[in-house]
Amino acid sequence: MARIALDAMGGDFAPRATVAGALLALSELADEHVIELVGRSDVIQAMLDELTSGEHAASAAAARGRIHIVDAPDVVEMSEKPTNALRNKPNSSMLVGLRRHAEGVVQAFVSAGNTGAQMAASTVMLRLAPGLTRPAIGTLFPTAGQPVLVLDVGANVDCSAEELVQFARIGVVYAEDMLGRPSPVVGLLSIGEEAGKGNAAVKEANQLLAAMPGLNFQGNVEGRDLANGASDRGPFDVVVCDGFVGNVVLKFYEAMAPLVISMVGASTGMDRAALDAAFRHLDYSEHGGAPLLGVRGVSIISHGKSSPRAIMNALKVAARAVESRLAEHVTRRLGAEPEAVA
Amino acid sequence: MARIALDAMGGDFAPRATVAGALLALSELADEHVIELVGRSDVIQAMLDELTSGEHAASAAAARGRIHIVDAPDVVEMSEKPTNALRNKPNSSMLVGLRRHAEGVVQAFVSAGNTGAQMAASTVMLRLAPGLTRPAIGTLFPTAGQPVLVLDVGANVDCSAEELVQFARIGVVYAEDMLGRPSPVVGLLSIGEEAGKGNAAVKEANQLLAAMPGLNFQGNVEGRDLANGASDRGPFDVVVCDGFVGNVVLKFYEAMAPLVISMVGASTGMDRAALDAAFRHLDYSEHGGAPLLGVRGVSIISHGKSSPRAIMNALKVAARAVESRLAEHVTRRLGAEPEAVA
Repeated sequence: MARIALDAMGGDFAPRATVAGALLALSELADEHVIELVGRSDVIQAMLDELTSGEHAASAAAARGRIHIVDAPDVVEMSEKPTNALRNKPNSSMLVGLRRHAEGVVQAFVSAGNTGAQMAASTVMLRLAPGLTRPAIGTLFPTAGQPVLVLDVGANVDCSAEELVQFARIGVVYAEDMLGRPSPVVGLLSIGEEAGKGNAAVKEANQLLAAMPGLNFQGNVEGRDLANGASDRGPFDVVVCDGFVGNVVLKFYEAMAPLVISMVGASTGMDRAALDAAFRHLDYSEHGGAPLLGVRGVSIISHGKSSPRAIMNALKVAARAVESRLAEHVTRRLGAEPEAVA
Repeated sequence: MARIALDAMGGDFAPRATVAGALLALSELADEHVIELVGRSDVIQAMLDELTSGEHAASAAAARGRIHIVDAPDVVEMSEKPTNALRNKPNSSMLVGLRRHAEGVVQAFVSAGNTGAQMAASTVMLRLAPGLTRPAIGTLFPTAGQPVLVLDVGANVDCSAEELVQFARIGVVYAEDMLGRPSPVVGLLSIGEEAGKGNAAVKEANQLLAAMPGLNFQGNVEGRDLANGASDRGPFDVVVCDGFVGNVVLKFYEAMAPLVISMVGASTGMDRAALDAAFRHLDYSEHGGAPLLGVRGVSIISHGKSSPRAIMNALKVAARAVESRLAEHVTRRLGAEPEAVA
């Protein structure tokens, strides 16, 4: 059973997308799951009334017993400086939701709001697992094979070799717990498969990873391997990179799918809906949420442009993270290991 | 009129792909263009005989007057260290071809062989334009709009802000000369459109580029903008990035097109050939060659897996570079400008 706080005010399409996403999630999640909608209670209540009227009344009534509104008068703006949000908006939906997680009232927090503020507030309020210097954002890339966990995709732009090693360690735990992959294979994103290829941090990280006991390290993987979910040496489960390159590739990927769809549609006269269906598992919003990895808790970062469907999926990712005790596993494992990382 | 040296031994499918590509190119290039096939003359002659026999005899006879074989007994291996190739293989097809360019016998050199060796040998034998510290590899990305020149895509993995600025300067000249874009718009690849977003080198480069007189700098662009060929602020012609991220995105892109084709084909039962046709302009090999920018000459770097069609296109890129006097323009412009770059 999970009780999840959702930042009802976060995201470009809030509160409509967030409230609608919560209702969708409750219709798919098991009955014991409860969602707290955190934000301006009058706004949330009005949206809830609108979305549960008329034809949706019957299923909505069932869901409403599992939805609670938690008032938070302030809102962190999408472009606001994280430090400002932390210092001056203790009663924002972001901070109220995370505080309820830190206090143990809820077991997870989900937001499509200001990512930098969510990272900073999660680090301060939930704290980091032992041996970590920064949290990371992991996301699942659909590939020609099985989905691959890529981290970091935006939390850390200038990464040391040691940070890349941290990403590998938490990625392995995540892949086991959330993806059910036994003994996950890790690849290091680079520009050639040979250990000597890459920038300075990657070359050093390759050596550190190759020397790490117990790690199933495949070596360097290239951009084409990431699309395929495998290199010539076989499939992999986790790909490690700095947050700059990870974020660029992620956003490129997001934009490619609709582009490709429109190109095929335009040149062949194929039915657009059929193509959308064919490409649905390429759509980032289908996955909904990227967990902030390394914090002592579950903080799911959603895309600012999240649809109700993306919010629903983010809530499902949160529920799964709680059930699999992801945060405890990461914390325990990283605490038990000798700290290879300063 | 251009006389072009082709490294007949370079690439995974040489010499068949290179010789076949040269024959294809001659059938499309104007009559005054001549191609030198540089490599083991007996091997090249045998391949030429094979490819111009039977049904192709008539058109081949016309082409053969414009093909010359230049003997070079050594071959630089694909995995060989560039320094080794430079020092120990002066009679390789790579070095013989570039030497003929340096001596003015040919006006361009094309190779699908060892990229690192080609870069190093081009730098040493052709020399760099004023104010440059490294050459860059530029390549055209097909986008939802017009193709965009991306540089660097692999020549420089750890780039300073000053090197990123150099890429912008040579990218502008290239976009004007080779793409015919008046007053090209430049974007800096980053993880957010705001000037303060990015890694340390990108943040500093943003400031340097914004302060550069005469440069049509749009600011930061994101991965999704690269796929679209435009940001919210409009289309752009040149995208600047370090060679690590550029190479990762390029290779990811290359692998995406066939992946997407197979996905659509599998789920809709559409004709594979029709899909291939629809996606042809997404195919990197269509573009064939990436010019090594910043050297005082025309050195075209082709993909190791180049098909005859890709080689043909690389030769056409070389011919166009010679006709537009790309190298002279870059050298003159960079020499005439105040050297903002140390």
